[in-house]
Amino acid sequence: MSGSIERSGNVARRRRVVVVGGGFGGLACASALGNAEVGVTLIDRRNHNLFQPLLYQVATAILSPADISEPLRRTLGRYRNIAIVLAEVSGVDVQHKAVVTSEGMRIEYDVLVLATGSVYNYFGHDEWQPDAPGLKTNREARCIRERLLLGFERAEITLDPVERKRNLTAVVVGGGPTGVEMAGAMAELGAFLIQRDFRNLARDDFRIILLEASSGILAGFDPELARYALERLQTIGVEVRTKTSVEAIEDGVVTAGGERIEAATIVWGAGVRASPVAQWLGIAPGASGRVPVEPDLSVAGLPDIYLIGDAAAARDENGKVLPALAQVAKQQGTYLGKALRAGLEGHATVKPFKFRNRGATAVIGRNAAIFQSSRFRLRGRVAWFLWALIHVYLLVNFEKRLLVSVQWLWTYLTRQRNARVIDDKF
Amino acid sequence: MSGSIERSGNVARRRRVVVVGGGFGGLACASALGNAEVGVTLIDRRNHNLFQPLLYQVATAILSPADISEPLRRTLGRYRNIAIVLAEVSGVDVQHKAVVTSEGMRIEYDVLVLATGSVYNYFGHDEWQPDAPGLKTNREARCIRERLLLGFERAEITLDPVERKRNLTAVVVGGGPTGVEMAGAMAELGAFLIQRDFRNLARDDFRIILLEASSGILAGFDPELARYALERLQTIGVEVRTKTSVEAIEDGVVTAGGERIEAATIVWGAGVRASPVAQWLGIAPGASGRVPVEPDLSVAGLPDIYLIGDAAAARDENGKVLPALAQVAKQQGTYLGKALRAGLEGHATVKPFKFRNRGATAVIGRNAAIFQSSRFRLRGRVAWFLWALIHVYLLVNFEKRLLVSVQWLWTYLTRQRNARVIDDKF
Repeated sequence: MSGSIERSGNVARRRRVVVVGGGFGGLACASALGNAEVGVTLIDRRNHNLFQPLLYQVATAILSPADISEPLRRTLGRYRNIAIVLAEVSGVDVQHKAVVTSEGMRIEYDVLVLATGSVYNYFGHDEWQPDAPGLKTNREARCIRERLLLGFERAEITLDPVERKRNLTAVVVGGGPTGVEMAGAMAELGAFLIQRDFRNLARDDFRIILLEASSGILAGFDPELARYALERLQTIGVEVRTKTSVEAIEDGVVTAGGERIEAATIVWGAGVRASPVAQWLGIAPGASGRVPVEPDLSVAGLPDIYLIGDAAAARDENGKVLPALAQVAKQQGTYLGKALRAGLEGHATVKPFKFRNRGATAVIGRNAAIFQSSRFRLRGRVAWFLWALIHVYLLVNFEKRLLVSVQWLWTYLTRQRNARVIDDKF
Repeated sequence: MSGSIERSGNVARRRRVVVVGGGFGGLACASALGNAEVGVTLIDRRNHNLFQPLLYQVATAILSPADISEPLRRTLGRYRNIAIVLAEVSGVDVQHKAVVTSEGMRIEYDVLVLATGSVYNYFGHDEWQPDAPGLKTNREARCIRERLLLGFERAEITLDPVERKRNLTAVVVGGGPTGVEMAGAMAELGAFLIQRDFRNLARDDFRIILLEASSGILAGFDPELARYALERLQTIGVEVRTKTSVEAIEDGVVTAGGERIEAATIVWGAGVRASPVAQWLGIAPGASGRVPVEPDLSVAGLPDIYLIGDAAAARDENGKVLPALAQVAKQQGTYLGKALRAGLEGHATVKPFKFRNRGATAVIGRNAAIFQSSRFRLRGRVAWFLWALIHVYLLVNFEKRLLVSVQWLWTYLTRQRNARVIDDKF
């Protein structure tokens, strides 16, 4: 199928901004262009913006996918100048200024914003993904949840000790915030469930192994906070193995040292790689596939194309590449949306993008988190409350805040998990 | 794999009750045996009890699966005499008193309770199920939700009028309570979404066709209430076609009259058939595959085997077969659990089971429901409030009541739908 998406004439007469990707960056950019004198088309292969920082809680049965997934149409539906297209973009025809989708649709642009984010980096072994899903999509989170919960169920009834051990072993690859949060949440899930709900399992039967290739976890954090996190993880029963890289994923995890760890649940959290924008634009990418951008977030030599979020390698005032973080993407999206709007309204000169670091946080478990900004270093219960407050606040609307708060409060008070659903076979 | 599930010695020494099925009946029976001097094993192929009366709300993006799915272990985990086995039962070895699972496990019983429920009856055409799922499992509900939401998304961008029409057509087969509720909820979903969120769709573009083979919908209800429901459905835009049966499901629905209705979403709600217990027991089944039972719910000639819920054909005092309803199953489960418990404690004579009709209800949409009991006939807003109160009350715990209430209140006030998630491809 081939054709223009804009069938309403009043849109077609205006300038057309096409935004690819409805993550934090793309959504912020489109929102900032809401009701502006410009036709905006947002393209995403999902119908929702996913609040990825809480996806590990879907994987550990605290929350449901819908609690952290906001339909793009719900957020943007009120802006009559914004159209949303559910499609997968497969390339950009730079010469004719059109985005091409995997189903052959062409969507023309005057200005293109690429906010396509990143994918997990399997270091050339994408075939590992089905066995070791990451935490980027609801489907992956539900898959991990099902493996975890099924593991307990199978261990409860099997008489084969090898099978039992495999079902009660979970491996997390990568000791960044995602890996730490996932390992911590699994430990709490296991401790509660096994103690209360199973007859043939003991608390210590459930093993969680966190593998980190470098010499320490949470590399981006203050060493003292990282050490606190390590101690908390060990206290709740997570085996943390540093300087251990993965050689293969087959019938479990094979480490570079040659050890095979059989595990029913494997979670991949070892670094990300930019989505293939460099390839679409015919540009040599930088580190991790990210494309260098100018101070106004445009791509050098392609003044009508802007890049924001994980796929862009923007630099701060000291020339350091900004990290691939939600807050960077969001700030870039808002900046760019406002800048494009100012351009339309004739205020052409815009200051370069400047990242304001809101601080970084990671949660290990109940009453245990770390928070670090340029001014503060916090850990323990205070950091945990702050983490919870920030994350509820960052959710997109009051309903989701209320739903997440209710479920968190319930989990906090009872240690129960609301979303322990093993999906039906059809 | 073959072996006994009961490894803890204290359970093995006691009498063993095996309950197959964790629906309303099986769960009520097991709960009534909680902490009794008997070992209980509950077997189900799911890990949760599904509150099926609200499953149509998962299919129409109001609720999430976890909101109506309560883990069996969460309900029964506190009873130390109850073990739960996640497995699919494939038969009963009546001679050796053992249940056999599809993976070859044998679980021995002294008393067997079969509470295996029913499946949708495709009248010999089970191959229709993938195209026309029913509303029995979370997976089916998510599948219907995805088809509905994807239909809107595709209709928004396609330029092919035939494809557009197909994507905007939904067919519900069967005019019982499930079919009526599903059709009504889809009409409300479509009216709101199309009006607010889509650019190229008009409210009337979305067609919902309800097919009923007999001469009227809601056959079990008072004709006046059924007529009210019909008028309400028509008011909100549902095309109700009675005396229309389905000949085939292929590229849409083919009616007995030879008309082909192309539809992106087809929902099956046309009658149920008992799960294959008759076959397991080597007994000739009655109508719809249900097995006749004695007044104490045991199977004639098999005094250690009891049957409850949809799979059992119990009779009321007038000799009329009780309907396949959640309230019948639940009352039977509680009755049987108490009776078995009384038997263990030496109070051997138990009164026959007596069904107490709590009334029947069906909801058409916002402020529109019908309620009928032996004493009352209600319709409209009052019946709707009553319906909502009853269903929140029937949910299993306070957390779920709160979560469902919040989402209902939100949907009522804003007409929004919280769970509009199209799942990611992996």
